[in-house]
Amino acid sequence: MQTHQHEIAAALRIGLRGMAKAVTVISLCHGSKRYAMTATAVNELSMDPPSMLICVNKAASLFLPLNEGAHFCINILQASQAEISAHCSVKARGEDRFALGSWRNSQLGPPYLLEAQSSFLCRNVSKVEFGTHGIFVGQVEQVHLREQNDPLVYMDGRYGAFRCRTGIGIDA
Amino acid sequence: MQTHQHEIAAALRIGLRGMAKAVTVISLCHGSKRYAMTATAVNELSMDPPSMLICVNKAASLFLPLNEGAHFCINILQASQAEISAHCSVKARGEDRFALGSWRNSQLGPPYLLEAQSSFLCRNVSKVEFGTHGIFVGQVEQVHLREQNDPLVYMDGRYGAFRCRTGIGIDA
Repeated sequence: MQTHQHEIAAALRIGLRGMAKAVTVISLCHGSKRYAMTATAVNELSMDPPSMLICVNKAASLFLPLNEGAHFCINILQASQAEISAHCSVKARGEDRFALGSWRNSQLGPPYLLEAQSSFLCRNVSKVEFGTHGIFVGQVEQVHLREQNDPLVYMDGRYGAFRCRTGIGIDA
Repeated sequence: MQTHQHEIAAALRIGLRGMAKAVTVISLCHGSKRYAMTATAVNELSMDPPSMLICVNKAASLFLPLNEGAHFCINILQASQAEISAHCSVKARGEDRFALGSWRNSQLGPPYLLEAQSSFLCRNVSKVEFGTHGIFVGQVEQVHLREQNDPLVYMDGRYGAFRCRTGIGIDA
Protein backbone atom coordinates (compact mmCIF):
# COMPACT_ATOMS: atom_id res chain seq x y z
CA MET A 1 0.00 0.00 0.00
CA GLN A 2 1.39 3.41 -0.93
CA THR A 3 2.06 6.06 1.73
CA HIS A 4 -0.78 8.15 0.34
CA GLN A 5 -3.16 5.20 0.71
CA HIS A 6 -1.94 4.64 4.27
CA GLU A 7 -2.89 8.21 5.10
CA ILE A 8 -6.31 7.81 3.51
CA ALA A 9 -6.87 4.51 5.33
CA ALA A 10 -5.96 6.19 8.64
CA ALA A 11 -8.44 9.02 8.03
CA LEU A 12 -11.10 6.56 6.85
CA ARG A 13 -10.68 4.57 10.09
CA ILE A 14 -11.28 7.72 12.15
CA GLY A 15 -14.34 8.60 10.09
CA LEU A 16 -15.77 5.08 10.36
CA ARG A 17 -15.34 5.06 14.14
CA GLY A 18 -17.90 7.84 14.22
CA MET A 19 -20.42 5.89 12.15
CA ALA A 20 -22.96 4.18 14.41
CA LYS A 21 -23.56 0.55 13.47
CA ALA A 22 -25.93 -2.19 14.56
CA VAL A 23 -24.04 -5.16 15.97
CA THR A 24 -24.67 -8.61 14.55
CA VAL A 25 -23.17 -12.05 15.00
CA ILE A 26 -22.67 -14.05 11.81
CA SER A 27 -22.92 -17.79 12.42
CA LEU A 28 -22.52 -20.86 10.27
CA CYS A 29 -21.82 -24.56 10.27
CA HIS A 30 -19.21 -26.10 7.99
CA GLY A 31 -18.36 -29.78 8.08
CA SER A 32 -18.49 -30.70 11.76
CA LYS A 33 -17.52 -27.23 12.97
CA ARG A 34 -19.55 -24.21 14.04
CA TYR A 35 -18.30 -20.66 13.53
CA ALA A 36 -19.50 -17.33 14.93
CA MET A 37 -18.17 -13.81 14.50
CA THR A 38 -19.31 -10.36 15.60
CA ALA A 39 -19.78 -8.13 12.56
CA THR A 40 -21.03 -4.67 11.74
CA ALA A 41 -20.37 -4.70 7.97
CA VAL A 42 -23.81 -6.08 7.24
CA ASN A 43 -26.32 -4.58 4.85
CA GLU A 44 -29.81 -5.00 3.53
CA LEU A 45 -29.63 -5.52 -0.22
CA SER A 46 -32.81 -6.31 -2.11
CA MET A 47 -36.38 -7.35 -1.31
CA ASP A 48 -36.73 -9.27 -4.61
CA PRO A 49 -35.28 -11.70 -3.89
CA PRO A 50 -35.10 -10.94 -0.14
CA SER A 51 -31.36 -10.65 0.42
CA MET A 52 -28.56 -9.19 2.53
CA LEU A 53 -24.81 -8.87 2.19
CA ILE A 54 -21.89 -9.21 4.56
CA CYS A 55 -18.26 -8.12 4.17
CA VAL A 56 -15.76 -10.51 5.75
CA ASN A 57 -12.00 -10.17 6.10
CA LYS A 58 -10.06 -12.96 4.38
CA ALA A 59 -8.13 -13.41 7.64
CA ALA A 60 -11.32 -14.26 9.57
CA SER A 61 -12.01 -17.89 10.45
CA LEU A 62 -15.39 -17.67 8.72
CA PHE A 63 -13.94 -16.60 5.38
CA LEU A 64 -12.93 -20.03 4.11
CA PRO A 65 -16.28 -21.70 4.90
CA LEU A 66 -18.12 -18.76 3.33
CA ASN A 67 -15.84 -18.88 0.31
CA GLU A 68 -16.70 -22.55 -0.04
CA GLY A 69 -20.39 -21.70 -0.08
CA ALA A 70 -21.49 -22.24 3.53
CA HIS A 71 -24.90 -20.72 4.24
CA PHE A 72 -24.96 -18.23 7.09
CA CYS A 73 -27.14 -16.57 9.69
CA ILE A 74 -27.15 -12.85 10.57
CA ASN A 75 -28.19 -12.41 14.20
CA ILE A 76 -29.02 -8.81 15.18
CA LEU A 77 -28.13 -8.38 18.84
CA GLN A 78 -30.24 -6.65 21.49
CA ALA A 79 -28.85 -3.71 23.47
CA SER A 80 -28.47 -6.01 26.49
CA GLN A 81 -26.17 -8.40 24.58
CA ALA A 82 -22.88 -6.47 24.48
CA GLU A 83 -21.33 -9.40 26.32
CA ILE A 84 -22.15 -11.75 23.44
CA SER A 85 -20.67 -9.26 20.97
CA ALA A 86 -17.41 -9.07 22.94
CA HIS A 87 -17.42 -12.84 23.36
CA CYS A 88 -17.73 -13.49 19.61
CA SER A 89 -15.01 -10.99 18.72
CA VAL A 90 -12.15 -10.60 21.17
CA LYS A 91 -12.88 -12.88 24.14
CA ALA A 92 -13.34 -16.37 22.70
CA ARG A 93 -12.38 -18.50 19.71
CA GLY A 94 -13.87 -21.43 17.77
CA GLU A 95 -16.61 -23.46 19.42
CA ASP A 96 -16.16 -21.48 22.68
CA ARG A 97 -17.97 -18.60 20.99
CA PHE A 98 -21.20 -20.59 21.38
CA ALA A 99 -20.84 -20.74 25.17
CA LEU A 100 -22.93 -17.58 25.68
CA GLY A 101 -26.57 -17.49 24.63
CA SER A 102 -28.91 -20.24 23.44
CA TRP A 103 -28.01 -21.45 20.00
CA ARG A 104 -30.36 -23.58 17.91
CA ASN A 105 -29.84 -25.57 14.72
CA SER A 106 -31.68 -24.56 11.58
CA GLN A 107 -32.90 -26.64 8.68
CA LEU A 108 -30.76 -24.60 6.28
CA GLY A 109 -27.61 -25.36 8.26
CA PRO A 110 -26.38 -22.35 10.26
CA PRO A 111 -27.00 -22.16 14.00
CA TYR A 112 -29.03 -19.15 15.14
CA LEU A 113 -29.12 -17.25 18.40
CA LEU A 114 -32.48 -17.76 20.09
CA GLU A 115 -32.33 -14.49 22.09
CA ALA A 116 -31.18 -12.24 19.26
CA GLN A 117 -33.52 -9.40 18.35
CA SER A 118 -33.88 -11.01 14.94
CA SER A 119 -32.11 -13.68 12.91
CA PHE A 120 -31.93 -13.94 9.15
CA LEU A 121 -31.03 -17.36 7.76
CA CYS A 122 -29.35 -16.83 4.41
CA ARG A 123 -28.51 -19.08 1.50
CA ASN A 124 -25.02 -18.17 0.27
CA VAL A 125 -25.73 -17.29 -3.36
CA SER A 126 -23.01 -14.95 -4.59
CA LYS A 127 -19.54 -13.67 -3.72
CA VAL A 128 -17.12 -11.02 -4.86
CA GLU A 129 -13.62 -10.39 -3.59
CA PHE A 130 -12.24 -6.91 -3.13
CA GLY A 131 -8.94 -6.06 -1.48
CA THR A 132 -8.64 -7.81 1.87
CA HIS A 133 -12.32 -8.76 2.00
CA GLY A 134 -15.00 -10.96 0.51
CA ILE A 135 -18.52 -9.68 -0.12
CA PHE A 136 -21.09 -12.45 0.32
CA VAL A 137 -24.69 -12.13 -0.76
CA GLY A 138 -27.25 -14.17 1.15
CA GLN A 139 -30.75 -14.86 -0.04
CA VAL A 140 -32.91 -14.80 3.07
CA GLU A 141 -34.80 -18.08 3.52
CA GLN A 142 -36.08 -17.77 7.07
CA VAL A 143 -36.58 -14.92 9.52
CA HIS A 144 -36.87 -15.19 13.29
CA LEU A 145 -38.31 -12.11 14.99
CA ARG A 146 -38.60 -11.38 18.69
CA GLU A 147 -40.78 -8.67 20.19
CA GLN A 148 -37.94 -6.58 21.62
CA ASN A 149 -36.86 -3.69 19.35
CA ASP A 150 -33.85 -2.20 21.10
CA PRO A 151 -30.73 -3.16 19.12
CA LEU A 152 -27.15 -3.04 20.27
CA VAL A 153 -25.26 -0.20 18.59
CA TYR A 154 -21.49 0.23 18.37
CA MET A 155 -19.73 3.55 17.86
CA ASP A 156 -16.35 5.03 18.61
CA GLY A 157 -15.21 1.88 20.44
CA ARG A 158 -18.25 1.84 22.74
CA TYR A 159 -21.47 -0.10 22.99
CA GLY A 160 -24.80 1.62 23.38
CA ALA A 161 -28.30 1.91 22.03
CA PHE A 162 -30.51 4.01 19.81
CA ARG A 163 -32.15 7.04 21.39
CA CYS A 164 -34.96 8.76 19.53
CA ARG A 165 -34.07 12.42 19.60
CA THR A 166 -35.84 14.48 17.03
CA GLY A 167 -39.27 12.94 17.05
CA ILE A 168 -39.38 13.22 13.27
CA GLY A 169 -41.02 10.06 11.98
CA ILE A 170 -40.75 9.26 8.31
CA ASP A 171 -40.37 6.09 6.34
CA ALA A 172 -37.30 6.16 4.17
CA MET B 1 -41.75 -13.22 -6.69
CA GLN B 2 -43.39 -16.34 -5.22
CA THR B 3 -45.86 -16.09 -2.33
CA HIS B 4 -43.33 -17.69 -0.03
CA GLN B 5 -40.74 -15.06 -0.96
CA HIS B 6 -43.32 -12.33 -0.36
CA GLU B 7 -43.79 -13.62 3.18
CA ILE B 8 -40.04 -13.75 3.78
CA ALA B 9 -39.62 -10.23 2.37
CA ALA B 10 -42.36 -8.95 4.69
CA ALA B 11 -40.67 -10.53 7.74
CA LEU B 12 -37.26 -9.27 6.60
CA ARG B 13 -38.66 -5.73 6.35
CA ILE B 14 -39.92 -5.92 9.93
CA GLY B 15 -36.55 -7.24 11.12
CA LEU B 16 -34.63 -4.57 9.26
CA ARG B 17 -36.78 -1.80 10.74
CA GLY B 18 -35.31 -2.77 14.10
CA MET B 19 -31.72 -2.55 12.87
CA ALA B 20 -30.22 0.83 13.79
CA LYS B 21 -28.35 2.46 10.90
CA ALA B 22 -26.19 5.52 10.44
CA VAL B 23 -27.72 7.91 7.93
CA THR B 24 -25.69 9.09 4.96
CA VAL B 25 -26.30 11.12 1.84
CA ILE B 26 -24.73 9.78 -1.34
CA SER B 27 -23.88 12.57 -3.78
CA LEU B 28 -22.44 12.68 -7.26
CA CYS B 29 -22.12 14.74 -10.40
CA HIS B 30 -22.86 13.31 -13.82
CA GLY B 31 -22.72 15.40 -16.96
CA SER B 32 -24.11 18.78 -15.95
CA LYS B 33 -26.37 17.36 -13.23
CA ARG B 34 -25.92 16.83 -9.51
CA TYR B 35 -27.62 14.00 -7.64
CA ALA B 36 -28.08 13.34 -3.93
CA MET B 37 -29.88 10.58 -2.06
CA THR B 38 -30.28 9.61 1.57
CA ALA B 39 -28.98 6.07 2.12
CA THR B 40 -28.40 3.66 4.97
CA ALA B 41 -27.17 0.66 2.96
CA VAL B 42 -23.57 1.78 3.22
CA ASN B 43 -20.68 -0.33 4.44
CA GLU B 44 -17.02 -0.19 5.20
CA LEU B 45 -15.27 -2.78 3.03
CA SER B 46 -11.47 -2.94 3.08
CA MET B 47 -8.57 -0.81 4.33
CA ASP B 48 -6.27 -2.08 1.57
CA PRO B 49 -7.22 -0.43 -0.65
CA PRO B 50 -9.34 1.91 1.53
CA SER B 51 -12.84 1.24 0.24
CA MET B 52 -16.55 1.26 0.96
CA LEU B 53 -19.65 -0.10 -0.71
CA ILE B 54 -23.15 1.17 -1.29
CA CYS B 55 -26.32 -0.68 -2.35
CA VAL B 56 -28.58 1.34 -4.63
CA ASN B 57 -32.01 0.47 -6.00
CA LYS B 58 -32.16 0.37 -9.79
CA ALA B 59 -35.22 2.64 -9.58
CA ALA B 60 -33.22 5.41 -7.85
CA SER B 61 -32.15 8.43 -9.89
CA LEU B 62 -28.52 7.82 -8.90
CA PHE B 63 -28.45 4.31 -10.27
CA LEU B 64 -27.87 5.17 -13.93
CA PRO B 65 -24.98 7.59 -13.25
CA LEU B 66 -23.42 5.07 -10.87
CA ASN B 67 -23.89 2.30 -13.39
CA GLU B 68 -22.08 4.46 -15.95
CA GLY B 69 -19.16 4.82 -13.55
CA ALA B 70 -19.79 8.16 -11.82
CA HIS B 71 -17.62 8.62 -8.73
CA PHE B 72 -19.53 9.29 -5.53
CA CYS B 73 -19.32 10.79 -2.08
CA ILE B 74 -20.65 9.22 1.13
CA ASN B 75 -21.59 11.97 3.60
CA ILE B 76 -22.25 10.76 7.16
CA LEU B 77 -24.85 13.04 8.72
CA GLN B 78 -24.74 14.51 12.21
CA ALA B 79 -27.59 13.89 14.67
CA SER B 80 -28.75 17.48 14.10
CA GLN B 81 -29.19 16.92 10.35
CA ALA B 82 -32.41 14.87 10.21
CA GLU B 83 -33.87 17.66 8.09
CA ILE B 84 -31.23 17.09 5.39
CA SER B 85 -31.93 13.35 5.48
CA ALA B 86 -35.66 13.92 4.97
CA HIS B 87 -34.92 16.53 2.30
CA CYS B 88 -32.73 14.15 0.28
CA SER B 89 -35.24 11.30 0.48
CA VAL B 90 -38.90 12.22 0.50
CA LYS B 91 -39.13 16.02 0.47
CA ALA B 92 -37.18 17.14 -2.61
CA ARG B 93 -36.08 15.92 -6.02
CA GLY B 94 -33.16 16.57 -8.39
CA GLU B 95 -31.12 19.75 -7.91
CA ASP B 96 -33.51 20.92 -5.16
CA ARG B 97 -31.91 18.34 -2.87
CA PHE B 98 -28.87 20.63 -2.66
CA ALA B 99 -30.92 23.51 -1.25
CA LEU B 100 -30.18 22.50 2.35
CA GLY B 101 -26.61 22.54 3.68
CA SER B 102 -23.40 23.88 2.17
CA TRP B 103 -22.25 21.76 -0.75
CA ARG B 104 -18.75 22.07 -2.18
CA ASN B 105 -17.18 20.73 -5.36
CA SER B 106 -14.39 18.18 -5.13
CA GLN B 107 -11.48 17.53 -7.44
CA LEU B 108 -12.67 13.95 -7.99
CA GLY B 109 -16.07 15.15 -9.16
CA PRO B 110 -18.79 14.52 -6.56
CA PRO B 111 -20.09 17.40 -4.44
CA TYR B 112 -19.66 16.95 -0.68
CA LEU B 113 -21.60 18.30 2.26
CA LEU B 114 -19.43 20.71 4.22
CA GLU B 115 -21.29 20.23 7.53
CA ALA B 116 -21.49 16.44 7.41
CA GLN B 117 -19.80 14.61 10.27
CA SER B 118 -17.48 13.09 7.68
CA SER B 119 -17.35 12.73 3.91
CA PHE B 120 -15.65 9.98 1.93
CA LEU B 121 -14.92 10.77 -1.71
CA CYS B 122 -14.90 7.49 -3.61
CA ARG B 123 -13.67 6.45 -7.03
CA ASN B 124 -16.27 4.11 -8.53
CA VAL B 125 -14.18 0.99 -9.17
CA SER B 126 -16.48 -2.03 -9.22
CA LYS B 127 -20.13 -2.99 -9.50
CA VAL B 128 -22.29 -6.05 -9.15
CA GLU B 129 -26.01 -6.34 -9.75
CA PHE B 130 -28.25 -8.43 -7.57
CA GLY B 131 -32.04 -8.50 -7.73
CA THR B 132 -33.46 -4.99 -7.69
CA HIS B 133 -30.16 -3.41 -6.61
CA GLY B 134 -26.64 -2.55 -7.69
CA ILE B 135 -23.68 -2.92 -5.33
CA PHE B 136 -21.04 -0.28 -6.04
CA VAL B 137 -17.55 -0.39 -4.58
CA GLY B 138 -15.79 2.91 -4.06
CA GLN B 139 -12.08 3.29 -3.46
CA VAL B 140 -11.75 6.14 -0.99
CA GLU B 141 -9.57 8.92 -2.39
CA GLN B 142 -10.22 11.74 0.05
CA VAL B 143 -11.65 12.00 3.56
CA HIS B 144 -13.13 15.11 5.18
CA LEU B 145 -13.48 14.90 8.95
CA ARG B 146 -15.17 17.35 11.31
CA GLU B 147 -14.73 17.36 15.08
CA GLN B 148 -18.31 16.50 15.95
CA ASN B 149 -18.87 12.77 16.60
CA ASP B 150 -22.60 12.45 17.10
CA PRO B 151 -24.06 10.75 14.03
CA LEU B 152 -27.68 10.66 12.94
CA VAL B 153 -29.16 7.20 13.45
CA TYR B 154 -32.37 5.84 11.90
CA MET B 155 -34.44 3.03 13.34
CA ASP B 156 -38.02 1.85 13.19
CA GLY B 157 -39.05 4.87 11.12
CA ARG B 158 -37.57 7.39 13.55
CA TYR B 159 -34.48 9.55 13.72
CA GLY B 160 -32.26 9.62 16.76
CA ALA B 161 -28.73 9.28 18.03
CA PHE B 162 -26.33 6.88 19.68
CA ARG B 163 -26.44 6.65 23.45
CA CYS B 164 -23.63 4.89 25.25
CA ARG B 165 -25.33 2.54 27.66
CA THR B 166 -23.09 -0.21 28.89
CA GLY B 167 -19.84 1.65 29.34
CA ILE B 168 -18.01 -1.34 27.89
CA GLY B 169 -15.23 0.01 25.68
CA ILE B 170 -13.50 -2.34 23.32
CA ASP B 171 -12.13 -2.01 19.84
CA ALA B 172 -13.66 -4.47 17.40
